[in-house]
Amino acid sequence: MALISLSRRLRRTPFSDGVEAAGVRGYTVYNRMLLPTMFRSVEEDYRHLKEAVQIWDVAVERQVELRGPDAGRLMQMLTPRDLRSMLPGQCYYVPIVDETGGMLNDPVAVKLAEDRWWISIADSDLLLWVKGVAYGYRLDVLVTEPDVSPLAIQGPKSDELMSRVFGDRVRDLRFFRFGWFEFMGRDLVIARSGYSKQGGFEIYVEGSDIGMPLWNALIEAGKDLDVHAGCPNLIERIEGGLLSYGNDMTEDNTPHECGLGRFCNTNTAIGCVGRDALLRVAKEGPVKQIRPIEIHGSAVPPCDRLWPVMDGDLHVGNVSSAAWSPDYNTNVAIGMVRMTHWNTGTELDVITPNGVQPATVYEAFWT
Amino acid sequence: MALISLSRRLRRTPFSDGVEAAGVRGYTVYNRMLLPTMFRSVEEDYRHLKEAVQIWDVAVERQVELRGPDAGRLMQMLTPRDLRSMLPGQCYYVPIVDETGGMLNDPVAVKLAEDRWWISIADSDLLLWVKGVAYGYRLDVLVTEPDVSPLAIQGPKSDELMSRVFGDRVRDLRFFRFGWFEFMGRDLVIARSGYSKQGGFEIYVEGSDIGMPLWNALIEAGKDLDVHAGCPNLIERIEGGLLSYGNDMTEDNTPHECGLGRFCNTNTAIGCVGRDALLRVAKEGPVKQIRPIEIHGSAVPPCDRLWPVMDGDLHVGNVSSAAWSPDYNTNVAIGMVRMTHWNTGTELDVITPNGVQPATVYEAFWT
Repeated sequence: MALISLSRRLRRTPFSDGVEAAGVRGYTVYNRMLLPTMFRSVEEDYRHLKEAVQIWDVAVERQVELRGPDAGRLMQMLTPRDLRSMLPGQCYYVPIVDETGGMLNDPVAVKLAEDRWWISIADSDLLLWVKGVAYGYRLDVLVTEPDVSPLAIQGPKSDELMSRVFGDRVRDLRFFRFGWFEFMGRDLVIARSGYSKQGGFEIYVEGSDIGMPLWNALIEAGKDLDVHAGCPNLIERIEGGLLSYGNDMTEDNTPHECGLGRFCNTNTAIGCVGRDALLRVAKEGPVKQIRPIEIHGSAVPPCDRLWPVMDGDLHVGNVSSAAWSPDYNTNVAIGMVRMTHWNTGTELDVITPNGVQPATVYEAFWT
Repeated sequence: MALISLSRRLRRTPFSDGVEAAGVRGYTVYNRMLLPTMFRSVEEDYRHLKEAVQIWDVAVERQVELRGPDAGRLMQMLTPRDLRSMLPGQCYYVPIVDETGGMLNDPVAVKLAEDRWWISIADSDLLLWVKGVAYGYRLDVLVTEPDVSPLAIQGPKSDELMSRVFGDRVRDLRFFRFGWFEFMGRDLVIARSGYSKQGGFEIYVEGSDIGMPLWNALIEAGKDLDVHAGCPNLIERIEGGLLSYGNDMTEDNTPHECGLGRFCNTNTAIGCVGRDALLRVAKEGPVKQIRPIEIHGSAVPPCDRLWPVMDGDLHVGNVSSAAWSPDYNTNVAIGMVRMTHWNTGTELDVITPNGVQPATVYEAFWT
């Protein structure tokens, strides 16, 4: 167990004071910023997330803002998802690909207006790719990282907590839609979204100065709801099949390999820089793909590197995320498996730090 | 003191097994990869670095490889340093700027051949910027992250250790020059360079498979030299004025603010995308600049956020890195100070977690 050495380079967030006061015990680094991983324990946090409501500092979901007459054109250049029917007020999960069709990020695009977008990013400096493309194409668009830090409210009591702070209108938000809500005289974007399957919201906190006042207001309002600081939970996100860029996929993978083919409209996404490269894979399908994998036997440790998936001596895939699930009483895992072995029920072996453990390609993610 | 939570996303290196066997106690994350920060203690590692020889896993210095007929043109687009006189076999420290003159990275450029370069990067996904610009300009160049992981040998006994493994010819390398040396049948680039002022080399280990064999060969060859695993040392690098991208400078800063004006040939670096933006600052000079700062009084804790530098009630700068120096018996620090207060000897206050501590603008970095 190693410590994390703090420095300015690992950026604090507008909510870090609250996170520390809540007794954060573990961190990871995401977009060169601190992301809590554990408060009480991963298992206790997991149980609490499923039963109550948590406040998550997910400021690491930095925004790439596109603003100007070419903002929409640039946004379509970045993704093979067809954005023509997207309206202001909507959020789209969008694979971002380079000119070879390799995944550079898997963010949520937030369409604020025809000429203004936020891209709420996973862990890579997508800003640099977007700036480079915009510069090379001489587009009329400003590409920046604004002072916007998402704060997520997740768990079954999220609607109750949020309505106490933002009013009952927040309950009417539909999934992946956003509205504008007032706090301390500011209008904030709030979306029904988040990196769990327990329901909830993401507040796009614009202006670091209101970070802690909002954090404190939510903690105060939720005392009788057992509100607690939380964070994306390793076990819960694997049960729910929520992929993690850098863990379950990298720039080596196409969206189709990641099971994101349904977010690719390769024929109609005219302008996407990776469109040519993806046309063939979109037609033929990938030769390996993300699958839920149940690993039998004893509880596995955290997966800090790829674990080979074997059929006898044949290397047919890799596990990239895994955890013991208290609710399903087994090890839940995410891996990428070759098409010869990806059918539901296929019996395989996974080489874990415990040794060789039998595994099965599962039919669907657990929740 | 928080733990670091490991996952595949925080990439291991070809030397991680050696780092763990040597008893690593702290990590940071750098280019989405693990970078050790401490083995015995920061102070013990510091003393040992100055007296013996250390092996550093600096695989986090990822390479951006440019290959193809437009490689040289692209390299010059990235930096305001004039590269026309650079020869194969040379390494140049090159500020990398965007179209506004803001620093995107401060890497070392390694010119392997006229049509092949490595950029050995600091902590930002520079690959994405370079790919974006190359794509936008339709340049004939391949931009990739190759399987190359630097291993640094640092400390006064570096020449002795290296000559035992690579032969006496390695002693003839001049500063910031490189040569090709053989290990296990592979030709490796070795440069006289590194992120300390104690002398040494960086081995560009091409091929992860020879990472641990090389690590072990160096440990074995250096037993009587008291060789030990080490890492960039916070105290030693501040004493030496070695800047850290993300700590001491960000994309908000021009190279001139970072004291890197001597690496900018703004008039003659034709093609640099940030040239127009930098012409004026190159002529007028910056209004704030990096300075060595001595902080008097008790030992300061690690600097995990900007510490304000004050003249009474006037905010005139910020400290970005600081540490207690056993050798100089004071707190050594790096900060950026406004021109009204940057002269040597100017007396200021720094607001540290200890409270307000008097400070002085120092004449030069300590080593």
